Amino acid sequence: MKEMKILSGKIISEEIRNELKKEVDNLSTEGIKVTLAVILVGDDPASHVYVSHKEKGCAAMGVQSIVERLPEETTEEDLLRLVQDLNERKDIDGILCQVPLPPQIDPQKVIEMIDPMKDVDCFHPYNLGLLTAGAPRFMPCTPFGVLQILKRSGYSTSGKNVVILGRSNIVGRPLSILLSLKGWDATVTLCHSRTKNIEKICRSADILVAAIGIPHFVSDDFVKKNAVVIDVGVNRIDDPNHPKGTRLVGDVDFEAIKEIAEAATPVPGGVGPMTISMLLYNTINAARLRNGKTTFEL
Amino acid sequence: MKEMKILSGKIISEEIRNELKKEVDNLSTEGIKVTLAVILVGDDPASHVYVSHKEKGCAAMGVQSIVERLPEETTEEDLLRLVQDLNERKDIDGILCQVPLPPQIDPQKVIEMIDPMKDVDCFHPYNLGLLTAGAPRFMPCTPFGVLQILKRSGYSTSGKNVVILGRSNIVGRPLSILLSLKGWDATVTLCHSRTKNIEKICRSADILVAAIGIPHFVSDDFVKKNAVVIDVGVNRIDDPNHPKGTRLVGDVDFEAIKEIAEAATPVPGGVGPMTISMLLYNTINAARLRNGKTTFEL
Repeated sequence: MKEMKILSGKIISEEIRNELKKEVDNLSTEGIKVTLAVILVGDDPASHVYVSHKEKGCAAMGVQSIVERLPEETTEEDLLRLVQDLNERKDIDGILCQVPLPPQIDPQKVIEMIDPMKDVDCFHPYNLGLLTAGAPRFMPCTPFGVLQILKRSGYSTSGKNVVILGRSNIVGRPLSILLSLKGWDATVTLCHSRTKNIEKICRSADILVAAIGIPHFVSDDFVKKNAVVIDVGVNRIDDPNHPKGTRLVGDVDFEAIKEIAEAATPVPGGVGPMTISMLLYNTINAARLRNGKTTFEL
Repeated sequence: MKEMKILSGKIISEEIRNELKKEVDNLSTEGIKVTLAVILVGDDPASHVYVSHKEKGCAAMGVQSIVERLPEETTEEDLLRLVQDLNERKDIDGILCQVPLPPQIDPQKVIEMIDPMKDVDCFHPYNLGLLTAGAPRFMPCTPFGVLQILKRSGYSTSGKNVVILGRSNIVGRPLSILLSLKGWDATVTLCHSRTKNIEKICRSADILVAAIGIPHFVSDDFVKKNAVVIDVGVNRIDDPNHPKGTRLVGDVDFEAIKEIAEAATPVPGGVGPMTISMLLYNTINAARLRNGKTTFEL
């Protein structure tokens, strides 16, 4: 029996970061320094870990990062004022605000306050709309990470049936849009909690993407023989055998599908590592656009 | 044999226009006059007909319309300046620019120049992005017309498999987004020229929407027993038996599906009449929003 291929986001991400580093070096020789500003409000431990990964990712390729740490009790008004200051600063190319935010702050207001030219998360409606219209300025990070894994593993999406589980604004919906644009040319079906006969729909997929946040939701019943399975889920479950008492698992039951699927991404080490690479990619493009250049393609 | 129901966009559109007229009257008693500005560049005969339909639609419900007619040789700069003037005018609620535009003008630049608060076609990236993020300000006119036909004919979309043929920025893609949002809750598959086994995919649809611009593309092979078929196509074909020598047909072979489908929209008289009603709906909402009110729901 042929063994299922493991699509390592870690390896692909490293390959991409090498390409990005070259581009940062090129810009640097032209006197262009790339800078990312990250806003972190409050004390959420996971957010602190994510932000520190972003800082390290920047440092490793010579992108400067500035982290604005604000207390939990920050008002919406103060946060919006900080965003405006960062919008105006000529030395900053990209801005992102780590979520979740404390309850007194409306995250949508913060997103809409960020200058769309500096919106490297690609969450601003203006940038989402450019994507929807087929002319994206920035790429939504996790969806574009999924596309890069497929492309760099030799899986064309053109004419393929792609089924996406999950209609979130961060993953499922923007990925469904990207994949059906000219150039990617997939036939996309977007499934969600109201979908009926979900297993059957998933079994029609040449490429199946799980992004619903339910541990091991996708098992053998969901996967067509030789399908490619991309697992975007990151779920923490109890595991008494693990030193921490918990461990991370995806939305896919990796063991259950390994004799059916052609290839799959593991969790951790699959889509996860791609997201920061795509953020760095957008930040470099923000710097390029602000300096009158076209975007750099991956 | 049960006869296929004909879903008359003409009748539904009249019903909606009566509701809209009431709202225009309500606003009028509060001293709010609703005004639409239409820009028409050049001499395209079809554009002149469309604009005159829009003017009549406005007049019939007490919405004021202003048509700015510009010569074919208008420069992009002059057109953009006109848009800016209309953006600034306090007496104008909605602005649209009739397409096609002459080749010296980039339509995307014109769309992006329109104040998103006055963009009643819902073509501006900011408004497309709000739609994609699940919080639309305005509704894309033809897609929302399709939803109103379904809703007002008693066909719920929740949990239904909807297949859309055609990924245009005006119909297919925004409709696919709308239908998969919470509230509409359909499981949507978006097909296009690169889709393989298109008949088979279409035969999985509870609701099939054709918007590809190919006369009679959808025949009996495409339609599941008791499916609902919505035909967005408007194609002019030669017909020596017709006084004009040509006639309008849809993307669906109406005769071929009439013993299979549960219901279908005719062409003409189906989706066509809905579009201007939805434009008027958006224009009324633009006036409401500019006067500090929430949007009026249909």
